[in-house]
Amino acid sequence: MRKPLILVTNDDGIMAPGIRHLVKYMLEIGEVVVVAPDKPQSGMGHAVTITNPLRLEKITVDGDHDEYSCSGTPVDCVKIAVSQVLKRKPDLLVSGINHGANSSISVIYSGTMSAAIEGSMESIPSIGFSLLDYRFDADFTQSKKYIQRIASNVLESGLPKGICLNVNIPAIKESEIKGIKVCRQARGNWEEEFDHRNDPSGKDYYWLTGRFALHENSNETDGWALENSYVSLVPTQFDFTAHQMIAELNKWDFDVK
Amino acid sequence: MRKPLILVTNDDGIMAPGIRHLVKYMLEIGEVVVVAPDKPQSGMGHAVTITNPLRLEKITVDGDHDEYSCSGTPVDCVKIAVSQVLKRKPDLLVSGINHGANSSISVIYSGTMSAAIEGSMESIPSIGFSLLDYRFDADFTQSKKYIQRIASNVLESGLPKGICLNVNIPAIKESEIKGIKVCRQARGNWEEEFDHRNDPSGKDYYWLTGRFALHENSNETDGWALENSYVSLVPTQFDFTAHQMIAELNKWDFDVK
Repeated sequence: MRKPLILVTNDDGIMAPGIRHLVKYMLEIGEVVVVAPDKPQSGMGHAVTITNPLRLEKITVDGDHDEYSCSGTPVDCVKIAVSQVLKRKPDLLVSGINHGANSSISVIYSGTMSAAIEGSMESIPSIGFSLLDYRFDADFTQSKKYIQRIASNVLESGLPKGICLNVNIPAIKESEIKGIKVCRQARGNWEEEFDHRNDPSGKDYYWLTGRFALHENSNETDGWALENSYVSLVPTQFDFTAHQMIAELNKWDFDVK
Repeated sequence: MRKPLILVTNDDGIMAPGIRHLVKYMLEIGEVVVVAPDKPQSGMGHAVTITNPLRLEKITVDGDHDEYSCSGTPVDCVKIAVSQVLKRKPDLLVSGINHGANSSISVIYSGTMSAAIEGSMESIPSIGFSLLDYRFDADFTQSKKYIQRIASNVLESGLPKGICLNVNIPAIKESEIKGIKVCRQARGNWEEEFDHRNDPSGKDYYWLTGRFALHENSNETDGWALENSYVSLVPTQFDFTAHQMIAELNKWDFDVK
């Protein structure tokens, strides 16, 4: 039987420990090709590179599977992998393991999840994985079983067209994790703050900072699951339509005459 | 009565004709502050700038209202406007007029729409406007009445928390436009192609190109509306959860023991 073909990408860059762990886990269940950004691309959301050309370089990191470093965003990596690198459509796309959470509204800013969403647009069963520890030397030990289990499930059952999975893993010991909880994206937002400074020549500059604020505590949400020691799993799609608002808007007077 | 405060941004850059038109339309109905990117930021999606600081410069373009040029993405512009520039929360955020369509799946790649979505996260009634002509010297004449009508409606009625509007305007004469149609995001995708070239030193590089493919022709969609000479208006939200998939996933075996 042919081994499943697994495309691996991320947004922290091809040398980040998170993707190195993910590559190892995937090599145990399939044939792996890596196409990932040549530098950190956190916070890039669904950005694509259209005003600059892309570079793609075949590199060797660890092992003899194919790895390509790309100068673009995570979404660029998926597009160029499908179009220029892979000889057939992959059976699975995995993105991550992100250093840091991508639960709740972070899904929209996340390069990790944007790569998974782009995969699902290409009809590739796709999963984004994130660990709730942004540090470079985060401990990924507890993630292995859960990631392999979820990846195997997706390889076996597939995913409906246009749906990918957003998986977040709490930064706690494996023995403390209560299991996997299927949930929905919690309502929350990033309350931004700007650190306003002056450069050596006296001109202003601003660093974007901020903190995440969760707006609800329903046990149906990823926010709740993670706070309660579960791995959260949110089925994720890309229809932005607020369907419930259509009837209301049809009552508005849009006559311009 | 105090005039409404209107924040104007875009993704084509602060000097693009599209935003210059939008500023003029908004000056007729409110007090305008512009915070927009200092250079084109098309295709940036919901990207935020976290590995570099931001620059913000007060500039004068036309008229004596406040304008700020920002080195970041469209989403950065909204965040820094709300946090550092505006003295109170604006009554309306308008983004555009984009040079080119942002209907169907383009909403996810669009800096114009990401700025509007970010506005709605900040509980600001927000609208993204796009014209179906990507040329720099596009004719915006037909857009004025529709944009002012929709903006006035939103100022009068508000929008529910977390919902903004995605408005696309066909590139046809005003007399040929049939009106405004409330619709949903059409299913479609960008079929990417890469233009593979060699630089003067012989190294490979790739330009991302591609064409949009519409996957349905339901008259409930923005794709249909635009092809049939309507201004399309899609209520737009940022819950990525595929709610219909939750029950199915709960049947999967996620036991890792």
